[in-house]
Amino acid sequence: MPTPPVFLPPTSYDYLTVQKVTGAESSAASDVVAAEEPLEIRLGFGPAHQREHRTLAITMRTPGHDMELTAGFLLTEGIIRSRADLTGIRYCPDVEKEEERENVVRAELAESLDVSLPRLERHFYTSSSCGVCGKTSIDAVHAAACPVLPTTGPYVAAEVIHALPARQRAAQALFEQTGGLHAAALFSPEGALLLLREDVGRHNALDKVIGAALLQEWLPLHNTVLLVSGRASFELVQKAAVAGIPVLAAVGAPSSLAVRAATDFGMTLCGFVRQQRYNIYCGAWRIQTEAGNMPGK
Amino acid sequence: MPTPPVFLPPTSYDYLTVQKVTGAESSAASDVVAAEEPLEIRLGFGPAHQREHRTLAITMRTPGHDMELTAGFLLTEGIIRSRADLTGIRYCPDVEKEEERENVVRAELAESLDVSLPRLERHFYTSSSCGVCGKTSIDAVHAAACPVLPTTGPYVAAEVIHALPARQRAAQALFEQTGGLHAAALFSPEGALLLLREDVGRHNALDKVIGAALLQEWLPLHNTVLLVSGRASFELVQKAAVAGIPVLAAVGAPSSLAVRAATDFGMTLCGFVRQQRYNIYCGAWRIQTEAGNMPGK
Repeated sequence: MPTPPVFLPPTSYDYLTVQKVTGAESSAASDVVAAEEPLEIRLGFGPAHQREHRTLAITMRTPGHDMELTAGFLLTEGIIRSRADLTGIRYCPDVEKEEERENVVRAELAESLDVSLPRLERHFYTSSSCGVCGKTSIDAVHAAACPVLPTTGPYVAAEVIHALPARQRAAQALFEQTGGLHAAALFSPEGALLLLREDVGRHNALDKVIGAALLQEWLPLHNTVLLVSGRASFELVQKAAVAGIPVLAAVGAPSSLAVRAATDFGMTLCGFVRQQRYNIYCGAWRIQTEAGNMPGK
Repeated sequence: MPTPPVFLPPTSYDYLTVQKVTGAESSAASDVVAAEEPLEIRLGFGPAHQREHRTLAITMRTPGHDMELTAGFLLTEGIIRSRADLTGIRYCPDVEKEEERENVVRAELAESLDVSLPRLERHFYTSSSCGVCGKTSIDAVHAAACPVLPTTGPYVAAEVIHALPARQRAAQALFEQTGGLHAAALFSPEGALLLLREDVGRHNALDKVIGAALLQEWLPLHNTVLLVSGRASFELVQKAAVAGIPVLAAVGAPSSLAVRAATDFGMTLCGFVRQQRYNIYCGAWRIQTEAGNMPGK
């Protein structure tokens, strides 16, 4: 087996301007984030005289290698069993909007392949956090009466954000034992831990936090800061927005769509929160940093 | 808002025996892994005289705080808008098998709540990698003619596994720029890199690798070793098994269900591959370590 080159198209990443915070100081810098866009997988199947086409799934992915992603998804989800079951695979030519054309792949299945319609239907789903393109999806969330985030605060001292990961880690009962869990933790704007939940799934940890707050009638969570242990994806931003959380900090990197969504929602998004540094991707007005030079610098 | 204690039930983690590898040496030790089990969310809705019940979703989660997870999921996915929309939430009393009872939650929605059936149907899905319990699900994968993994090899020198993360990182074009991507990489049993793909989603990175291999007619991948950059979940083990990959190494921790599935498939599963150490959770016979004491120990 030869080694194919790892080729990444320009759509795999986005350039943007961020505020880099070091200690209490902040300055503008350019940065690169991994792109995240929805990919819609459409299938063509059945005999030639009554060929059917339908959407199988929408997955949030980094653009690039989309035919491979589609082929692998079809195999590992049990739709096809071998290369021969796939007679064609390409960007769907029927998509009208040019900007969405590379977010829709059409796979043609062999006429002889026995496609179980009920099984396909179990796969056929979309959720409020997915759409044919990020914009559609974000519009859908807005339309679904997404709580409006407060525009007058809260204000959070830059140092408070630095302190969150250590506080989260100290409270992670299960992580210490297993080394293998994601966490989501809710803090006051002063950095006091209000609530922490752990799960093998990032989304589940956040849903547990939001569900606990909902059951205790704390919503909307306008006066809180959320820390997530991993990266900030579009879906985490969307879930936080629904709960009214105005400040989201992630130990890892945000995706391009996470930044776009947080910007649209008026949310403050911080990433790479570690070792007295982090980036502010949007909503920097809520983070109070020292203007100008620090003493001794 | 008071700080509720973080209570974790005993079902949140599993104890097991692993082989701990340090350098070329290996010894048995006990270990703890985070539990991963499917949670089925069922809904009751509609007016009292024609109440409907149906399954909304099945999610792979760490047991514990299941009512909160359900409430948060319903809110952030747009099924409910407030606490008042939820009139009851508990483990479903209708589940017959006792061992599955704490994997099914039933949420009762307010009679007045306008539940959009088409929207619910978009949510209503299962996939080949989910089931009401892990066992059912693993059975389903077996039944779906999952390729049998080879029982006569390949054999991999312990040192080869140690070397994989550095080789993966060196080939990760996009990670270096963004710091925010998962990767899946296929190696020969001697540790030569065959194929690497990156994505914001762990499953997508693996589907891209498997899809690339499928399109080049390399399947089944019996003579390969797979490295994933994050944790090893049940779904990653399942996808690797479908492609015939006999050795899965993860930089992060495996979940309990990942270990159970890998054991059932006859797969070799290594976790925490970092800094000249790793654990072998099952299939240790494929990894060649030095028997007995090392010089100087």
